[in-house]
Amino acid sequence: MADVAARAGVSLGTVSHVLNHPERVTDATRAKVEDAVAALGYRPNRMARSLAGGRSSAIGLAMTDLSNSLFVDIARGAGEHAESLGMSVLLADGDNELGREVRNLELFDELSVAGSMITLSDEEHMAALVGARSGGRPVVLLNFSAPEAWFCSVAVDNELGGYIATEHLLGTGRTRLVFVGGPEVLRPVHDRRDGFRRALAGAGLVAVDELRPDAINREDGVQIGRRLVADVRAGRVDGIVAASDLLAAGIVQALLAEGISVPSDVAVVGYDNNQAVWDLPVPLTTVAQPGEEMGRRGARLVIDEARTAGHVHEAVLLQPHLVVRASAPHAGARTS
Amino acid sequence: MADVAARAGVSLGTVSHVLNHPERVTDATRAKVEDAVAALGYRPNRMARSLAGGRSSAIGLAMTDLSNSLFVDIARGAGEHAESLGMSVLLADGDNELGREVRNLELFDELSVAGSMITLSDEEHMAALVGARSGGRPVVLLNFSAPEAWFCSVAVDNELGGYIATEHLLGTGRTRLVFVGGPEVLRPVHDRRDGFRRALAGAGLVAVDELRPDAINREDGVQIGRRLVADVRAGRVDGIVAASDLLAAGIVQALLAEGISVPSDVAVVGYDNNQAVWDLPVPLTTVAQPGEEMGRRGARLVIDEARTAGHVHEAVLLQPHLVVRASAPHAGARTS
Repeated sequence: MADVAARAGVSLGTVSHVLNHPERVTDATRAKVEDAVAALGYRPNRMARSLAGGRSSAIGLAMTDLSNSLFVDIARGAGEHAESLGMSVLLADGDNELGREVRNLELFDELSVAGSMITLSDEEHMAALVGARSGGRPVVLLNFSAPEAWFCSVAVDNELGGYIATEHLLGTGRTRLVFVGGPEVLRPVHDRRDGFRRALAGAGLVAVDELRPDAINREDGVQIGRRLVADVRAGRVDGIVAASDLLAAGIVQALLAEGISVPSDVAVVGYDNNQAVWDLPVPLTTVAQPGEEMGRRGARLVIDEARTAGHVHEAVLLQPHLVVRASAPHAGARTS
Repeated sequence: MADVAARAGVSLGTVSHVLNHPERVTDATRAKVEDAVAALGYRPNRMARSLAGGRSSAIGLAMTDLSNSLFVDIARGAGEHAESLGMSVLLADGDNELGREVRNLELFDELSVAGSMITLSDEEHMAALVGARSGGRPVVLLNFSAPEAWFCSVAVDNELGGYIATEHLLGTGRTRLVFVGGPEVLRPVHDRRDGFRRALAGAGLVAVDELRPDAINREDGVQIGRRLVADVRAGRVDGIVAASDLLAAGIVQALLAEGISVPSDVAVVGYDNNQAVWDLPVPLTTVAQPGEEMGRRGARLVIDEARTAGHVHEAVLLQPHLVVRASAPHAGARTS
């Protein structure tokens, strides 16, 4: 601890304050001491636990589904930030099962982590989470906006994502568009649909159709793709905005199997920039979410809530961006 | 607990034995009780912790690098097996830093998990691990073979992987082969190189060259690719076996940039079936490892070691398989 004090240029008493009563020091002093801790490579299981106010040096991240690379990105961003403070991130995969996600959160609580992050995708999860929350430890919601009175949250603007996907298709001359969504209870799907409608309205157009499969997996996409074959052949549909890459991958697969050309006959934009569909013969144009940034911001908020007496909840909204590939190329690009 | 006894068809005393003295009951009885626990969906934070002998209901998995999809597969397999027993898997990402991996293992230990798994790739890691191991909790090594006297381990046969990659190239008429490896301290790289040599020897051939970049990342591959341009143009090299997909991706990228055709001029086989390189213009033929199976077997071994008095260490060796894509197609396939 003397090393830390010397390096930070503060007294031993100040280091002790940072460790035990962080609310009594200024942010600048705390930052100096934390930098010294990081530079000296102190073992997290002694120093950083103290930094977190006597609790564990770990924060938890309960993920919806590790097979979606968005959650891997979130985990990496959170890990990077925690590591820079000498802390660790414990991860748990919910495998898309609500019960398992809630149990993961309970597990973090039992392990006395400094705080937890959980990725959410619908209101039902949100309700279960509020019920499961206990022990007064900080919980930050990721990929979901929550009332600030309850939680900090870091979300991506899904309405904007739906908008830029649709604008891209309109900008390449496609006008007969279909949105393929999913259960309306999934708020990201709902918001992406709203963005789709706003872009169409801005161009003075209306949707050819809005489809709502029971789920947003690849197999659902295959079913939808088969249903769209006749409309595409007849020229009634020339562009598709799908609410997930898994859906888009299934749709493209079904269309190609019927001899339809993507993007010549119909352009397709997915959502997620999901590596799980990387082996598609026609690489997907998609809306990418800033997963690492979401993880970093979430970790910063949860650690702040764990350490700072006067912590104020924040709802952070990040912006998605378009990644253009072959399934919906730029205007003027060769499409066959 | 009465529900469990009724469903399993045993007495309350037997259930208690399973919970507290598993060594006093037969495996069959324990299996019956565990099945009943799983069927009744008992909360892991009460029942399953007891099943693990008074320890936590969680097992830990310290991963080398979450951005390599192999480790995601391992995590998913381990999670599936643990979940079937009402337990949970805590994950931690080492981000390719030895210090962080060891700290993750220490963290699991502090959290009193029932046992841990750690993925390893070299002898240095192995030595650090033996040093860090404490508390007498089970540790199972994944992706690495260890002396059975010390640990259980689940590995994939890397020598066989190098062999089948090379055999595939030989089977498509390529005879002027280069192996691109990495530091010899990385045992998987070393073993894959041995498999490459065995296949060549079996065909009465010798390697044109064996290259050894300092690391096995994409940028290393780009450097190697540039060095190989002249040899490929001169017809001195017609096939490349790379020790990782990241290397292979860099090599292909550098060759394409120089106007060389893959696979017409030179065929390339990678290793890992890594989703991180999915956006390559020429999809990679690669050697895939059974990641989910590795995770399932590892979880089974670590839980067995935590619960069973007479546990005997096992070294499990799984087989890889070839995934054929455009960078090295089947014999007779169109290659341009």
